[in-house]
Amino acid sequence: MTTRTTDSHVTQPEPYRWQGVDLLAYKEADGTFRSVTRQVLTDAEHGQGVSLRYFEVGPGGHTTLEKHEHTHVVIPIRGRGSALVVDRVVELELNDVVFVPSWGWHQFRAADDEPLGFLCSVTVERDRPVRPTADELEELRRDPALAAFLRV
Amino acid sequence: MTTRTTDSHVTQPEPYRWQGVDLLAYKEADGTFRSVTRQVLTDAEHGQGVSLRYFEVGPGGHTTLEKHEHTHVVIPIRGRGSALVVDRVVELELNDVVFVPSWGWHQFRAADDEPLGFLCSVTVERDRPVRPTADELEELRRDPALAAFLRV
Repeated sequence: MTTRTTDSHVTQPEPYRWQGVDLLAYKEADGTFRSVTRQVLTDAEHGQGVSLRYFEVGPGGHTTLEKHEHTHVVIPIRGRGSALVVDRVVELELNDVVFVPSWGWHQFRAADDEPLGFLCSVTVERDRPVRPTADELEELRRDPALAAFLRV
Repeated sequence: MTTRTTDSHVTQPEPYRWQGVDLLAYKEADGTFRSVTRQVLTDAEHGQGVSLRYFEVGPGGHTTLEKHEHTHVVIPIRGRGSALVVDRVVELELNDVVFVPSWGWHQFRAADDEPLGFLCSVTVERDRPVRPTADELEELRRDPALAAFLRV
């Protein structure tokens, strides 16, 4: 149901809303995330085997804690927030490059008073994310920084 | 000779200079470009078959007018400028998405008083750019907007 465009120049009639690109729910609501939207900026038809998406997490919101075989390259371009990447929590500055390797745990959180918007590149062909088991979650939470950060 | 990093979080000790990423010349000087630097942010080792580069064109500068089979996805993240994409000149706003299809002519120019910095995604395996022949250049210049824009 995504409208995408291969126009040579995709403008923003308002900031961070690209012309001809649908504003989508991040995924079906399952209680594991909060206040997240998605816009698919490029996909298979752009000829690189990757899809570039823009995610925006509202103030106080977060993405799902998950891992998968495919990698992520993430670049924050709006607001402020932090992320769990593999086994540590990092504060994000605009235009930082975040690399989530295969099977690395990850979760993104916006600041309480600002959104967090980021570009996220993935391969077009990719596996489904998996969420932590109770045992895995317990193990992650042994690190106090992660225990304080994680939202599930 | 590029130093790259697969650190999970690549910060910027100063804006638009990524930690552990070399600042490179755009290409060997051949008189076809002016005032351009390059940083390779991701490459084959990031597992997506693409490389994400950051190019910065200094005030008044420009990239080479060229075309090739591989595509470009370009997102300006600093400053101001304009571009020839295929057959028209577009003014660039931050976070616009520019798509250069296979064999589309393209050239990027910074404003006279501001740099133009942009992310540019390409496949890791790609063909070499070609520059216009005298005949092709003459044809491009039949359009007055292109004639005024192009720098060769």
